[in-house]
Amino acid sequence: MLISYDNLYKFTYAIFKSIGCNDKDATTATKTLLSADVRGVDSHGVARLSGYVRLWEAKRVNTNPQIKIVYETPSTAVVDGDSGLGLVVAPFAMRVAIDKAKQAGTGWVSVRNSNHFGIAGYHAMMALQHDMIGMAMTNASALVAPTFSVERMLGTNPIAVAIPANHQPAFVADFATTTAANGKLEILQRKNEDAPFGWVQDKNGHPSTNANELKQGGALLPLGSDREHGSHKGYSLGSIVDIFSAVLSGASYGPWAPPFPAYVPVPENMPGKGLGHFFGAMRVDAFRPADEFKQHMDNWITRFRTAKPAEGYEKVLIPGDPEREMEAIRMKEGIPVTDAVTSDLEKVAEKFGVSF
Amino acid sequence: MLISYDNLYKFTYAIFKSIGCNDKDATTATKTLLSADVRGVDSHGVARLSGYVRLWEAKRVNTNPQIKIVYETPSTAVVDGDSGLGLVVAPFAMRVAIDKAKQAGTGWVSVRNSNHFGIAGYHAMMALQHDMIGMAMTNASALVAPTFSVERMLGTNPIAVAIPANHQPAFVADFATTTAANGKLEILQRKNEDAPFGWVQDKNGHPSTNANELKQGGALLPLGSDREHGSHKGYSLGSIVDIFSAVLSGASYGPWAPPFPAYVPVPENMPGKGLGHFFGAMRVDAFRPADEFKQHMDNWITRFRTAKPAEGYEKVLIPGDPEREMEAIRMKEGIPVTDAVTSDLEKVAEKFGVSF
Repeated sequence: MLISYDNLYKFTYAIFKSIGCNDKDATTATKTLLSADVRGVDSHGVARLSGYVRLWEAKRVNTNPQIKIVYETPSTAVVDGDSGLGLVVAPFAMRVAIDKAKQAGTGWVSVRNSNHFGIAGYHAMMALQHDMIGMAMTNASALVAPTFSVERMLGTNPIAVAIPANHQPAFVADFATTTAANGKLEILQRKNEDAPFGWVQDKNGHPSTNANELKQGGALLPLGSDREHGSHKGYSLGSIVDIFSAVLSGASYGPWAPPFPAYVPVPENMPGKGLGHFFGAMRVDAFRPADEFKQHMDNWITRFRTAKPAEGYEKVLIPGDPEREMEAIRMKEGIPVTDAVTSDLEKVAEKFGVSF
Repeated sequence: MLISYDNLYKFTYAIFKSIGCNDKDATTATKTLLSADVRGVDSHGVARLSGYVRLWEAKRVNTNPQIKIVYETPSTAVVDGDSGLGLVVAPFAMRVAIDKAKQAGTGWVSVRNSNHFGIAGYHAMMALQHDMIGMAMTNASALVAPTFSVERMLGTNPIAVAIPANHQPAFVADFATTTAANGKLEILQRKNEDAPFGWVQDKNGHPSTNANELKQGGALLPLGSDREHGSHKGYSLGSIVDIFSAVLSGASYGPWAPPFPAYVPVPENMPGKGLGHFFGAMRVDAFRPADEFKQHMDNWITRFRTAKPAEGYEKVLIPGDPEREMEAIRMKEGIPVTDAVTSDLEKVAEKFGVSF
């Protein structure tokens, strides 16, 4: 089923209002959540709306949070999200990073006491209109085994970096630090198909193609898949995201990161508060005149876009190209919502007496 | 042949003096270069000494540079290396980042007009003694094809992140953003062995196990190896390193990065000056009290080190463990130098009348 952005927006906004968000927060949460659907990251958009509702029902989300800066220097801050929706806490923290950058050249904000923040790319892209480079990352509940291990110690811990250009569209990288995101496994599970080798391992650490392996004690693999192909680099990246997001801020890190599904118990003896994020904003004119930088970014992008394609491929892509093309299509034609998600949203609609 | 650190130090220092470095720069260059040998990154240490000499002979390295800050804000700077040795320019720039962090909480320095800076980890680790997180990255001559391309557009563009702990040794990640570093291919070439699939592609973009593929128009592959295993993420990482190091600073980027071997001509129409680097320093107490942070890092490291190993493996490693263990051995037993490198160093010794 195709639903227009406007209709999906009205519905999602009404649900966030129903669970106690004020107008401003409901607007922010809706825009943040739906940016995933618009950009084609279906696993992180409206499909998760009922999950946020369940977290609220379990009293793990506070829809009337006092989000505040608890520690700061000219170029840094720690933000406490007061258990608010990550969809609202993250844009608050990214604005702090941008404000710091206006004064000090760069701004770096680590966040504690938050939860799932939607897609990282949305937050990083907030910097672009200010002629800043934006960065966003977050830790997440543990699904990933470090190299040489069978224990799930890290989340899929994504990194997003958005870099402004002049006439060319911005460079926007946004990726999980695993070989494949969990959402891709879920797609295979629904289709009853196998995963390629290198995405998951079984509970003993052996390579597996079973897309359901995580339900049987297996784990996702860090970017690189195995030691021979650099999985220690993916493990390093996921670890850096965990430490910047949660150890710097005082959130709960590593295997103690709180899970998104409300039915999964919160880990015992958490070493910090909630989930953690990390945001950065760098004014490009803190390094060289902004026009000069953006003209060189145009040159960089044009040169890479015209690199010679491999046999069987049409062209080389710039990070952000597929999502931007998807956005143009979906804002015009509507957003596809699967039957499973539709029925899930109908239940949420019924619960709050909101029309869907 | 095993050579003691002290003897290798005296020899290397004498060579840097012979090509015109003053005492201070020769000391810095020697320490930086040999940190690679000590930590087991043999491809980046004394094996490259004759390469630096040839760059000096080709007048591509200025051993009496006026390294200076050309642009700055409270938390950022651009450093012009004046074509100095990267081994000297990089520590200068990292010190600027550390000084900025003392005042503003964090410091971020982009460098132009430099060349090969040794191992990234050495520079990142300079931050540790100041209770700061250190970051270092650099662009490099183009050997890597973006996803879907056959053209070499990026260097192996490494990233290093060093994070202090309390009783535990520091977390030190230092890795090329490719599946395998070029040095690993060179080892296979010497042994006349094949590479695993996923390290290189041939000139048409097809998978290859030929360790000599780069000599025949092939390319290294970004971390992830192919699209199905996330090579677009490695391509994104390498691109971010290139842009932070060279587009922010005004160095030469992408396929125009100047090559290390002096016999390879400098690219035509370079869009900037020399090679670029990027450094960051973040005071941990710009986020939370340093003792608190470092105690949580101890907890993080201990938890990951005791994660359950996979069948056939003894333990899980923390980034930096192998290099630190290597350092302990080599400082005691000496540094192994291959016959090829020995004969190369003998020629350099003879050229300058220095005893080896």
